[in-house]
Amino acid sequence: MSITFSQPFAEPKGSPIRELFPYLSLPGMISFAGGYPSPSLFDSEGLRDAAAEALTAGGVAFQYGSTEGDVSLREQLSALMAHRGLDCPSGRILVTTGSQQAFDIVVRVLMNRGDVAYVETPAYPATIQALALAGTRIVQVPVDSDGLNVATLEEMLRAACPKDRPKILYTVPTFSNPCGTRLSLDRRERLVQLALEFEFVIVEDDPYSELAFTDERLLPIYAVASRCVTPEQNPVVYLSSLSKTVAPALRIGWMVASPAVLRRSAIAKQTMDLCTSPVSQAIAASYLASGRYPATVASACAEYGRRMSTMATALQSHLGNRVQFDKPTGGMFLWGRMGDGIDPTRVFKEAVDLGVVYVPGHAFYASNPDANTFRFSYAAPDCKQIETGVARFAEALEKAGSALANSD
Amino acid sequence: MSITFSQPFAEPKGSPIRELFPYLSLPGMISFAGGYPSPSLFDSEGLRDAAAEALTAGGVAFQYGSTEGDVSLREQLSALMAHRGLDCPSGRILVTTGSQQAFDIVVRVLMNRGDVAYVETPAYPATIQALALAGTRIVQVPVDSDGLNVATLEEMLRAACPKDRPKILYTVPTFSNPCGTRLSLDRRERLVQLALEFEFVIVEDDPYSELAFTDERLLPIYAVASRCVTPEQNPVVYLSSLSKTVAPALRIGWMVASPAVLRRSAIAKQTMDLCTSPVSQAIAASYLASGRYPATVASACAEYGRRMSTMATALQSHLGNRVQFDKPTGGMFLWGRMGDGIDPTRVFKEAVDLGVVYVPGHAFYASNPDANTFRFSYAAPDCKQIETGVARFAEALEKAGSALANSD
Repeated sequence: MSITFSQPFAEPKGSPIRELFPYLSLPGMISFAGGYPSPSLFDSEGLRDAAAEALTAGGVAFQYGSTEGDVSLREQLSALMAHRGLDCPSGRILVTTGSQQAFDIVVRVLMNRGDVAYVETPAYPATIQALALAGTRIVQVPVDSDGLNVATLEEMLRAACPKDRPKILYTVPTFSNPCGTRLSLDRRERLVQLALEFEFVIVEDDPYSELAFTDERLLPIYAVASRCVTPEQNPVVYLSSLSKTVAPALRIGWMVASPAVLRRSAIAKQTMDLCTSPVSQAIAASYLASGRYPATVASACAEYGRRMSTMATALQSHLGNRVQFDKPTGGMFLWGRMGDGIDPTRVFKEAVDLGVVYVPGHAFYASNPDANTFRFSYAAPDCKQIETGVARFAEALEKAGSALANSD
Repeated sequence: MSITFSQPFAEPKGSPIRELFPYLSLPGMISFAGGYPSPSLFDSEGLRDAAAEALTAGGVAFQYGSTEGDVSLREQLSALMAHRGLDCPSGRILVTTGSQQAFDIVVRVLMNRGDVAYVETPAYPATIQALALAGTRIVQVPVDSDGLNVATLEEMLRAACPKDRPKILYTVPTFSNPCGTRLSLDRRERLVQLALEFEFVIVEDDPYSELAFTDERLLPIYAVASRCVTPEQNPVVYLSSLSKTVAPALRIGWMVASPAVLRRSAIAKQTMDLCTSPVSQAIAASYLASGRYPATVASACAEYGRRMSTMATALQSHLGNRVQFDKPTGGMFLWGRMGDGIDPTRVFKEAVDLGVVYVPGHAFYASNPDANTFRFSYAAPDCKQIETGVARFAEALEKAGSALANSD
């Protein structure tokens, strides 16, 4: 019996981040690797109360739900969106099984094999993998300290022949993964104009925007676009999630999009999982209705801000100008670049031996990686672990450096 | 802004069953339509206790989980499988977001556009839709009172030129949807031989086998195959779910397959939803460990058996030999065929006006539907509603018959 797999699954590569998992459980290991929020910041008590309330409804709480999502959860999410400056009725929200599913739906509904996806680069690896497995052509768009480089994007668009123009552009505009940068308002406006001119869909992935360390708030790109077009004409598909602010284990994400996109997305979702767990949805709705969400987010912001500062200070004190990075103003990630030609991938084994794990930068590129880069997440470890972890990383660099010198 | 959707989603059709949803909420409506289990049979108390227990673990209960699934749930499922006569270690089980996701994964991992899927027909509509949206060529294999007609299948396989041979064959061998039939052991054995000879994967969808009205148990096809081949060579991908026996709202399904299929399925699932809700998984594991599962299933079997008998008796007493059907020995569905040329699709509007809704048979065919057929589910309505609903259906047939006579 020999099985012929589908073309993308003949010899598929796993997630480069998930491949680091075996290291995470080693005793004493400090992890800067995963995009995991800190479990100590989850409001476990509030979630337990929400679960108890959600499951008192009797048998009906355990039945199938609608593909589009639970009405009361969609109303809560609509209110949450309004708070972010994005006005949409609950009927324009599709609940998904995490925002990962929302992106998978977008790919199915929009992309044929061979279609072009522009992706800000470096980018979230699961996005790259989903696009690669769907057989799309990934074109990397560079970023800088203000996020996606929209001027370069414009040059690329104007230079591309029609068959190489993108159908979608993927970006995490607010506290990006992996760079932690934020796209400026000017760029958001220009990006919308380009999407309308070149007729591509902007996939705005927004799991982190509420994890802000300053009071400055920027409108979602979707909301920027809605100033000049109707909901039917909005070129943005907006994705978000409760995974970084409430709890990943609920697997609650959502999509806001034009009716044409939403209708097809619901049909796709029918064949994917029929509906997102109504138990999870009821817990999430109950939790959001409890009024505990703002305080939970506020304490996460305060703690992540502290951890980020600790990490930035430790990196500067241990590595000085051997490392370059922008200090994030929100989110969970710090993106670093070694200035003296040391490749963090080659240091990786040393670092693991010393008890710290992180993601070498190549994981965030579909092609042509910048080998001198790395991503550190400061969300899961506490400040003390962060200081120790950075010290171990510096030691690993030193060891690798002297090994290199010895082998010369 | 004009969006070009992917080819399958240019003008997609929704689920023919979900399109009946608006009728279901009409006052006084009796529904034989959905494949919904009866919420009155859910063990709400046991599930609430399981949820309370599962969520006491603190923050870690709300974190991301592994793509393959929670270890304790997989151990519980392995024990459940052993009870069904299918021995597999927990490591050979992939937890999925309902068995719908498991099937979606199978399609992704195995099927290229244009590949051939053999599907027992009539068949579950969401299967047909998932295969159609993936651009596969669906070939219908007939069934009879003993399930999939394996002799006809063999003729089809021998007659097919290599490019038209199937990569997968889809079947619900035990209490099929929509027919309620059970594939005999002889046929299971022959089917395995054919899969090995013609090198196709048997997708064995098994959500209903525990809902049996008699003591007779048949081995899953996977277990039949494992008598003669190693797990690596087993041509069966086995799918199941807790949706029909515990609660659909948990969205817990699973897959048992060869290591080569499982490894790729986990990679596919990473891009689909990262992991199935760890909250749902913990509730399910806790519930299965509580020991309440066997009694819950036993009372569902007893009640569904009563409802099925009530429906069969009512159909016979109201319609006599105008309707043909096999009395199911388990599951949730009765498949009927009108003997006198009356098309249940054309009667549908009359029936809705009289307060009963069901699924006309055409929904269960990818092509060439038998227009005289219909599916009644006896799972959700109680016995009194079943009697009233069948009477209304008979009345609708009568009205349509006289309208037809008048218009002649």
